Amino acid sequence: MLEADLALSEAKPQRGGRGARRERRAHSAQDQGRPYIVRGIPTYDILSEESLVRIEQTAERILAEIGIELREDAEALRLYREAGAKVTDISADVWNLKFEPGMLREILRTAPAEFTQHARNPANSVRIGGKNVVFAPSYGSPFVMDLDRGRRYGTIEDFRNFVKLSQSSPWLHHSGGTVCEPTDVPVNKRHLDMVYSHIRYSDRAFLGSITAAERAADSVEMCRILFGADFVDQNCVVMGNFNTTSPLVLDGVTTAGIRTYAAANQGSIHLPFLLGGAVAPLTIAGMVAQGLAESMASCALTQLVRPGAPAVLASFFSSMSLRTGSPTFGTPEPAIGSLVMGQLARRLNLPLRCAGNFSTSKLPDGQAMQQSMMSMMSAIQGGANYVLHSAGFLDGLLSMSYEKLVMDTDMCGALHAYMDGMEVNDDTLGFDALAELGPGQHLFSTAHTLRHYETAYWDSALNDDQPWETWDEQGGIDYAWRANARWKKLLAEYQAPALDQATDEALLDFIDRRKSSMPDMWY
Amino acid sequence: MLEADLALSEAKPQRGGRGARRERRAHSAQDQGRPYIVRGIPTYDILSEESLVRIEQTAERILAEIGIELREDAEALRLYREAGAKVTDISADVWNLKFEPGMLREILRTAPAEFTQHARNPANSVRIGGKNVVFAPSYGSPFVMDLDRGRRYGTIEDFRNFVKLSQSSPWLHHSGGTVCEPTDVPVNKRHLDMVYSHIRYSDRAFLGSITAAERAADSVEMCRILFGADFVDQNCVVMGNFNTTSPLVLDGVTTAGIRTYAAANQGSIHLPFLLGGAVAPLTIAGMVAQGLAESMASCALTQLVRPGAPAVLASFFSSMSLRTGSPTFGTPEPAIGSLVMGQLARRLNLPLRCAGNFSTSKLPDGQAMQQSMMSMMSAIQGGANYVLHSAGFLDGLLSMSYEKLVMDTDMCGALHAYMDGMEVNDDTLGFDALAELGPGQHLFSTAHTLRHYETAYWDSALNDDQPWETWDEQGGIDYAWRANARWKKLLAEYQAPALDQATDEALLDFIDRRKSSMPDMWY
Repeated sequence: MLEADLALSEAKPQRGGRGARRERRAHSAQDQGRPYIVRGIPTYDILSEESLVRIEQTAERILAEIGIELREDAEALRLYREAGAKVTDISADVWNLKFEPGMLREILRTAPAEFTQHARNPANSVRIGGKNVVFAPSYGSPFVMDLDRGRRYGTIEDFRNFVKLSQSSPWLHHSGGTVCEPTDVPVNKRHLDMVYSHIRYSDRAFLGSITAAERAADSVEMCRILFGADFVDQNCVVMGNFNTTSPLVLDGVTTAGIRTYAAANQGSIHLPFLLGGAVAPLTIAGMVAQGLAESMASCALTQLVRPGAPAVLASFFSSMSLRTGSPTFGTPEPAIGSLVMGQLARRLNLPLRCAGNFSTSKLPDGQAMQQSMMSMMSAIQGGANYVLHSAGFLDGLLSMSYEKLVMDTDMCGALHAYMDGMEVNDDTLGFDALAELGPGQHLFSTAHTLRHYETAYWDSALNDDQPWETWDEQGGIDYAWRANARWKKLLAEYQAPALDQATDEALLDFIDRRKSSMPDMWY
Repeated sequence: MLEADLALSEAKPQRGGRGARRERRAHSAQDQGRPYIVRGIPTYDILSEESLVRIEQTAERILAEIGIELREDAEALRLYREAGAKVTDISADVWNLKFEPGMLREILRTAPAEFTQHARNPANSVRIGGKNVVFAPSYGSPFVMDLDRGRRYGTIEDFRNFVKLSQSSPWLHHSGGTVCEPTDVPVNKRHLDMVYSHIRYSDRAFLGSITAAERAADSVEMCRILFGADFVDQNCVVMGNFNTTSPLVLDGVTTAGIRTYAAANQGSIHLPFLLGGAVAPLTIAGMVAQGLAESMASCALTQLVRPGAPAVLASFFSSMSLRTGSPTFGTPEPAIGSLVMGQLARRLNLPLRCAGNFSTSKLPDGQAMQQSMMSMMSAIQGGANYVLHSAGFLDGLLSMSYEKLVMDTDMCGALHAYMDGMEVNDDTLGFDALAELGPGQHLFSTAHTLRHYETAYWDSALNDDQPWETWDEQGGIDYAWRANARWKKLLAEYQAPALDQATDEALLDFIDRRKSSMPDMWY
């Protein structure tokens, strides 16, 4: 039980800016990160007030005139109905819900604009919302990839490896959730091993299970063992990531999971996964309007269950290949959509999960990193607060890549420096440095250069900045194979953060009991 | 002579937005581009008014108190002195010039905020300044690279190949200048072959020589043969890209070249190439202040020679590896600097050249494309008007890469779609499409999807969007090798744009005469 520590743990980020970074350089590589980023640059607001209002009005019109279909959750139906939704029965357990314009916005007023998700290491607790940005590894891939073994189904060993690699990076802030599907563990028991792996091999915050209400409940219960039941009731220590069934459907498994998290005062993310032309209009404005409508409807359920429970608005936009009809990721139109989603979330005063290191590439190559950077930039410039899929995403989310994970975490490091923005003061303006030697003289040896040398620039662990000749002599290794060497080194050097032995035993005991209580299910 | 055509050729971009793109889809791949981009999204302004003013004040203070050193150009000295510069003799042909605060800004008022650079094909003339964005290939690498032959010194054949490949891309707008150094041609004659290659193998606008005043004059003279002397005197048909000698030096070869272009009413770009800690303060705010000071001082010379001559403010920021002291490209701090430079250029009401597809990688790999995208995003979001180095840049600018060229041009295509932004109207909001089938129904077959199918998303020629299985069956080719196949295909299919035979003969005759008039020089 870590309550004593946690009671003291209102999350405090290390100060941003160069001064803070200089201090951190004195520590080990692991210490160079921050529990989360507090952005030092403004958001990139690309759409006019008038256009934003039109999108919001369209979202309200979708909710009022087309409505949301709710399936197989009578309790959710009761909550929505009591809140004022207009219900039409479609069948015995399928209903259409219509919401008067403004109704969901009113319900969402009780949701916090910003909240803390506590980590078992209080220094790693994260603030979600406002100017805060939290990076978490990718989520949900059935396959894993590395350059040695190629593509294969993920296992619990892969899962643990990804948790360890994420924990090893100073540039991630959160351990994520289903970092890959551990397909060698029965479907109805995997969540226990996944939650345990996050607790055991990371000391950061994480996501729990959402694939069934009882698995959501197990996730919360394991957190009660870890943090103490009272603490959990009063604080967010776990979140669930819930997908709507687009277009415009909430299924009962999802809503039951949402209710479970909200009732326990835990966080939930409400994600329409929108593939334009398939489950949303092909045009990006329409996709954003629909995404806003769906995410608002899903978020609102949390406030009907327990006003004040943390809820995160979310969006995931994907485009389509004109040649094959396949979904495409990391393309320009979704990036624009993500920027706009940031504007809409701020107008709603809710935290936002958006974008990530998306790519359709099947290898950790130039396509992968070019698409990833465009997509990631939209997240950080658009003001996303929680960026799931920050590391490892390849193959249109079907594969989690070992190499891409370390490439992406390195990029996340660069984005820390980017989000610090530019410090403008007498020292950084450097007039004296320039005046010291005057025109035509190099500044290598000025006091200003020496003073700032270790802190002026972000230092990549993976890029090769050497002259071509040196690089060539060292074997001319490309980025993907350097990443391959790096993840192996990180795994070899990984050390698990300490975990109280009694807590560990209690968790393992709980898992044993739950596993024994049910037969294996494989679908 | 193409005057008749040119007289009619006030450049008109094709309309931006999806509607315009739909029209263009009906044409061949070559026709999908635009002569230049008119941005549909606002710039990303990250710095406050107060901080911008501090940077400007520091630039003015550098100019007033430290001054600029001018070397070996008595005519430039005369012009600066007559305009009011305070001159201190350092030696017989080296002078320090100090400028009272505000003086250079006043001189720069006659420089156009926006101008047209005419191409020999009037449809390809570009507008530089304002909301316009022009992409040109990379500039100045002594080496070239491809996956088959590795790194080697560039030749005139490579030069021609890069001009042809650039011309083949619908996503570049300008043929650039020294796309690689043709090291097999004598130093004092290369410019003739380079300018001829741009004229012969491209029908877009291009940059002339700047390495000596007489080579600048030859460049302008060749343009007079192509466009007619009167037309050239009244219109910008060529530009020179001039580097200051940082910190704070203008050498006489450069200023003589600048005077040559300005006297002929041709454009010039005024670029401090700033490596923090070497030729500028290590801190980015100081680097930007110095860059602004140097570029303003260099730009101002054009207006002293011929008020109204086109001049382009410019910046190139590079960081430094903390481990090796090597320059690094495509890193976060310079990207932030480029965004700020955009704000400063708009306050000065001058067109801006800034950033590009920078990388320190030695291969067209993930590092290359990740760094390139971050750097390119800073150019297009910061409001750069002329983006040299838009394609081919590798190895810290030491190498021009065949594969990276086609990767980058493909990325430039994505950036066209990005800069179109989001169109918000009843059609794109797609309410009817969503209402047509209602919740839970896919939109594949709606009229809205079919109507927008060919135009909603940018279509990459190089990314692989296929399912993993299909990609694997086709050999599992990575991005770099797809690019390798693509540049070979483009070169094989390349067709030179028509050039009037008499003009061609006149150009070749001029080149013959110039070459015969001087012995070969190899340094």
